[in-house]
Parts: sequence; structure tokens; C-alpha cells
Amino acid sequence: MTLPPLAITMGDPAGIGGELTLAAWRARRSSGPAFFVLDCPRRLAALARRLNIDAPIREATPETAAAIFPDALPVLPITLEGESIPGRPNPAHAPAAIAAIEQATRLCQAGTASAVVTNPVYKRNFYEVGFAYPGQTEFLGALSAPEAQPIMLLASPQLRVVPLTTHVPLLEAVRRVSKDGIVALGKALAPALAQDFGFSPARIAIAGLNPHAGEEGKMGREEEDIIRPAVAELIAAGIKAIGPFSPDSMFHADARASYDAALCMYHDQALIPLKTLDFQSGVNVTLGLPVVRTSPDHGTAFDIAGSGKADATSFLAAIDLAAAIARRRQA
Amino acid sequence: MTLPPLAITMGDPAGIGGELTLAAWRARRSSGPAFFVLDCPRRLAALARRLNIDAPIREATPETAAAIFPDALPVLPITLEGESIPGRPNPAHAPAAIAAIEQATRLCQAGTASAVVTNPVYKRNFYEVGFAYPGQTEFLGALSAPEAQPIMLLASPQLRVVPLTTHVPLLEAVRRVSKDGIVALGKALAPALAQDFGFSPARIAIAGLNPHAGEEGKMGREEEDIIRPAVAELIAAGIKAIGPFSPDSMFHADARASYDAALCMYHDQALIPLKTLDFQSGVNVTLGLPVVRTSPDHGTAFDIAGSGKADATSFLAAIDLAAAIARRRQA
Repeated sequence: MTLPPLAITMGDPAGIGGELTLAAWRARRSSGPAFFVLDCPRRLAALARRLNIDAPIREATPETAAAIFPDALPVLPITLEGESIPGRPNPAHAPAAIAAIEQATRLCQAGTASAVVTNPVYKRNFYEVGFAYPGQTEFLGALSAPEAQPIMLLASPQLRVVPLTTHVPLLEAVRRVSKDGIVALGKALAPALAQDFGFSPARIAIAGLNPHAGEEGKMGREEEDIIRPAVAELIAAGIKAIGPFSPDSMFHADARASYDAALCMYHDQALIPLKTLDFQSGVNVTLGLPVVRTSPDHGTAFDIAGSGKADATSFLAAIDLAAAIARRRQA
Repeated sequence: MTLPPLAITMGDPAGIGGELTLAAWRARRSSGPAFFVLDCPRRLAALARRLNIDAPIREATPETAAAIFPDALPVLPITLEGESIPGRPNPAHAPAAIAAIEQATRLCQAGTASAVVTNPVYKRNFYEVGFAYPGQTEFLGALSAPEAQPIMLLASPQLRVVPLTTHVPLLEAVRRVSKDGIVALGKALAPALAQDFGFSPARIAIAGLNPHAGEEGKMGREEEDIIRPAVAELIAAGIKAIGPFSPDSMFHADARASYDAALCMYHDQALIPLKTLDFQSGVNVTLGLPVVRTSPDHGTAFDIAGSGKADATSFLAAIDLAAAIARRRQA
């Protein structure tokens, strides 16, 4: 069965999303996967001219996108009012960026798109127009599965990591380490890794929190009081959980061979090894939703937007991984 | 001028120190650097027989060690009472292990040894015989420079890191992040990196504490209230400090090219990238003391002691780095 095209969102039009999309179309026009973008055709054409990128823009529907894809970038038009200037985010454009996410999600739910790949947004402008979610992930969750708890997984060719908390101060993250939180995340993660990556049963390595995983309680009690009991509960529930491991000794190549994903206690414990091993190829994958969604592991990069310096490696990896997951779910 | 030999300590005789020393002698007998070990000749000979390692043992003094080195492992004898069984640490042997550290330090102070390379010890047994220091580093400091504040630097071929705190629970480490602590460490680190590594002036990258270095205070205040002012004070003092950097984005290859050492806010922020990039080659270097001291970046490994499985990569790197630093100080 043919995979429906992927739906790509515009992201913040002052960021690097447009040039990433143009570059990705050139890189994938022959090989696929086919995609369309929810964006303003006029501004994409202007951007292609500005950066001297040979990428014809053509208005499309989800149904016509695949046929157009080899010859032009298919665009489901969302008109931007006023001028869009790279590097200068405009709050007036936030509603269009939000609409792109909503439409992409709806098209996936309808089955006319196979996955959503989101470009980076500027949340501050979203909040100014009344956006009521911490980020795109929660918005997609609310649109597609209000009861679900979306999981943020970061994937690179070498490593898959899931942090227990994301964008909270480290002190707060340490305080939020709880048995219930680890167990709930592990229980949601295992079937998601099976469904979307084919790891069945998935081997989940649970990180410790303290240096040397606390050395039996000598350098912090969380491993003994919280994490070890959580691992035991996951194992009792039939999940292949292992750990807790010393955080500094679980991410080298030999250690990585023993698990499919690492469940980490805080943001940087997950992101430091991922980005140290491969700074460009990380992909943010939202697991646990009916809609497949990936995004590049970087921001709007306003400082280089419009200069042609943006690196599309992570964006291309996000497109390829979204297609791989969509195919697996379709099979 | 010829470099005096290095002094190697026995470490815990139930650990992997003996077999590392035997392996290191075979690996360096032709090329150097020459070293002697403060250990029990009888137990080393028994270990070589047990593991079928062709390494003659010969009693030596610091003065005769260099001449002996090409033909046999020079040993300054420290007699162990009773049997020494790999994997079974014996508190009765702790005084000998402590004496080895003390003698090695004294020989360096006297100039008959050029550096101390310490094998891993079992601190619990040290404490049982009244050892009053947190670890070997502090003991060396007390012996050689009671007023000095030794600095623990971890060095691998790709990265040098210095954690602000070491073996404390993460919650405590977060609470201990202070401007005075960062400034004092940065001021001590810069001249040490110049003296021992030739980085003059040394470029010191200061890590943030929170995800994305707090994003201007939105995810934690420590960067704005503590770390940024500390960086400013270091710069005002003439030190090439840069940062604070987002912890997840400062350890990939491009980022590493911009600094000589990273000053990290806690143990795993330093150790995760170091050990993820290269699990075997990390060396622990004590800076800021009159005595040059390195050690391998691993423990006694009682579980594999006596089996011949111990990997000498880190130990050899510790020997080579000790010699390189000693040569630089001599020049």
C-alpha cells in the first residue's frame, strides 16, 4: 500500500523552517518520501529566489501532492499577512503557524497524510496570541488524543533517549524523580517502541540519578528508594527494564548495545550523550499518540535564518524517521 | 635532562592494580617512560605466574629503577602480610596500600621520582584503619601542599573536564553551585592548564546548570544569578572564560574545538560526555599540587581481578600523561 504523503508544518516563518523545507524537497524529490508543506506559497517562492535554490513551488492538496512531488514542492497554502522577514519573528504570523500544526494533525487523522513533521516555532509569539499549551507536542496531543500522555523520544543513529522531565530547572527535575513517574513512562514507552521501532520486547535501560548511581545509597538515596523499586515494578509488569545504571557509564558504544532506549532522569542526562555523539542528526519523536509526529532537534535559529547556512541533516532525519514509523504502523 | 622514573602505587592488592602494572611494564618496557612500583614483590610474582604474564620482578630503588626497567619490572618492596587474593579485599592490607601512596609522594618531593600514578584503592578498608581523607587526591594534597586546593581534571584524547563538585548527591551538587566556587576553580585551573598542558592562556568553557542554560532565566535562575557573574569575574581577572553554555550543546566535536577544558557544574555533566566519547582512555589528573599525579579513571574492579580481563588502556594513558606533564614541568 502506498504511503500517503507526509505533512510538514511551516514553523515560525522568520526561522529556518522554510529553507529546510526547500532543501529537503531537493534532497528527497527523487527518492521520497513524498511530502507537502502547509505554508505560504508566496513567501516560499521569495525565499527560494533569495537563496538561489532551484525549487519550484506548486499549490497542492494532500491528494495531488505525491504526483507533484518529483517536479515541485507541493504546498497547501496558508496565506501570511504582510511581509515575512528572516530573523524577525512577527506575532501577526503566529496564528498561521498554529493553523499549520492543526491542519497537519487533522489531515493525519483523516488518513490523507501519514505523519506530521513540525518545523521549529517561536513559542513566545504563540503565547501572545493565546496559545494555551507548553509546546507543539502537547498541542498535537490535545488535538489527537486528549487522554494520552505524549512521550518525547530523542533518536539519533547511535542512541534513543527519553527524559523523565524536559524543560524544567535541574533542581526541580531532581525533585520530580518519582517511582510512579518512572513506572508510568516505562509502561507507555515499551509498547510505543514495539509499535514504532519494532523493538519487541523493547529493552529499556533505566539511568540512575546520582554519581555512580549513588553507590548503594552512599551518594544519594534516590536509586535505592525510588529508581530500583520502579525498575522492579516494571519488570514485574513484564517489561524488559534494566538498571539503574551509573549515568556516566551507560552511553558508550558497548553499553548502548545492551538496550534499545535509555529512560533518563532529567533533560541533560539524555541530551548530553545524544548531542555529544552526533550533534546534527538528532530527531525529536512524539510517541504515544495516534498521529505520527517528528521534528528536528533544534530551534528556529533566527540568527542564521535567510542566510542559507542552516543544516538540514536533522530535518531530513526527521522526515525519514516519520516515514519509517508511518510505514511500520501501516504494515 | 633525563626524567626520573614514575612511581606507581600498588592500589588495593585485591583489585586489578597488579595486573595493570604488569601489563603496563610489558607495553612500555622498550619505549618508556620508565617506572617503578611500590608493591609486594612476592604477590606480583605470584600474579604474573597465575596470569601467565612474562614479567620478571626485580627489587629496585628509585635510583636503580631506570636501568632495570628494560629487563624487569622494578619494585620498591612493601611487604604484604598474609595472602593476597584477587577479588577479596583484606583490611589488613590497607596500611601497605596507604604507605605506597605516601612513599610515592615523598619520592616525588625528593625529586627521585617524577610523578605518582596511583592504582585504584578500596576506600572502605582505608577508613577502617583510620584513613582521614575523602580519597587519595586529598591525601596527596595533605602530604605535599596542605594549603593547596587540588583540582580533579578528567582527560581523554577528545576532552578535558573539571567538575565543580565530585562525589555528592545530585541535589546537593545543584545546591553547591556558587559564584565563589566557580571563580576559585577557574582561577586555579587556568595556570594549572598552562603549566601542565601548555595552554597559555587556557580557554575555559563554563557550562550552564539547567536545560538550555536556563534560556535567560526561564528554566532556572542559576545561570543569570551565579554562573554568568562568575564568568564575568573570571574574565575581569584576565582568564579566557567563555559561557555559560547549554550543557547539551558544548561537547560535540565542533564545540570542543573552541576550548581547552570545560568547567562543569556537577560530576555527570563532566563524566557523561567524557566516558560516552571514550570509555577506556579517560585519565584522572590532579592539578594544583607540587607533585604530578594521575590515575586511571576506573575502580578496583574486584569482580574481574585476577582473571586477566582488566583493560590497561586508561592505566597506560595515565602513565603517559604523567610523564608528559612531568617533562613539561621539568622544561
